[in-house]
Amino acid sequence: MDTEPALFSILRQGQVLVASVHTALDDSQLLRLQRDLVGRVGTDRARGIIIDVAALDVLDSFGSKTLRDIAEIARLRGALTVIVGIQPDVAQAMVELGIGTGAVATALDLEEGMAHLAAALGPAWTP
Amino acid sequence: MDTEPALFSILRQGQVLVASVHTALDDSQLLRLQRDLVGRVGTDRARGIIIDVAALDVLDSFGSKTLRDIAEIARLRGALTVIVGIQPDVAQAMVELGIGTGAVATALDLEEGMAHLAAALGPAWTP
Repeated sequence: MDTEPALFSILRQGQVLVASVHTALDDSQLLRLQRDLVGRVGTDRARGIIIDVAALDVLDSFGSKTLRDIAEIARLRGALTVIVGIQPDVAQAMVELGIGTGAVATALDLEEGMAHLAAALGPAWTP
Repeated sequence: MDTEPALFSILRQGQVLVASVHTALDDSQLLRLQRDLVGRVGTDRARGIIIDVAALDVLDSFGSKTLRDIAEIARLRGALTVIVGIQPDVAQAMVELGIGTGAVATALDLEEGMAHLAAALGPAWTP
């Protein structure tokens, strides 16, 4: 399974991990994203996580739950999560279906997500 | 009971009490940790508490509740609490079981916990 093309990438920018989802993920791939991200919080000493879902044209209840779980696990490990890039149609469908991101912060795009983390993590934080 | 080997230690670093849990604690030991820490806040005039749970490979609902209680009791006595060192597997299990640390701050490790307290307690604070 580890030889298949990357369905998501996790890049480090200073104290922030930027996870970009390239295509729709099935449930096991979502859990792999969760496991990889949570592990990287410790190894990279990340203070923030940005999950970019701009490439997704659908976000179902399991996907939303996994994003919420990632944010909560990361918080327990000391990192703040922002979800960015939810498309208009995806947002509309999520609201119609009654699924959401719970208490997890959201932002329009990567730039706004970085700004949110900078404001939340304070002056000692370096991007 | 007071002659058994120490299951946790409470060290003072300036205005901060660092409580390290060395092994899994049963319910009565958790309550003893709570009583000892709350007492030390007064005798040591502590402004901050760091509880290091890195040695724990499980944190059940009673343990989580006790940590939340310690943080709230300490807050009523004027001290801020940060929980550090929650292992990835422990964090994952906690989220799956729906137990958490509530509003209590968390950080990756002792160093990040100290940084969090420094940011929260302001410039007059000395580590």
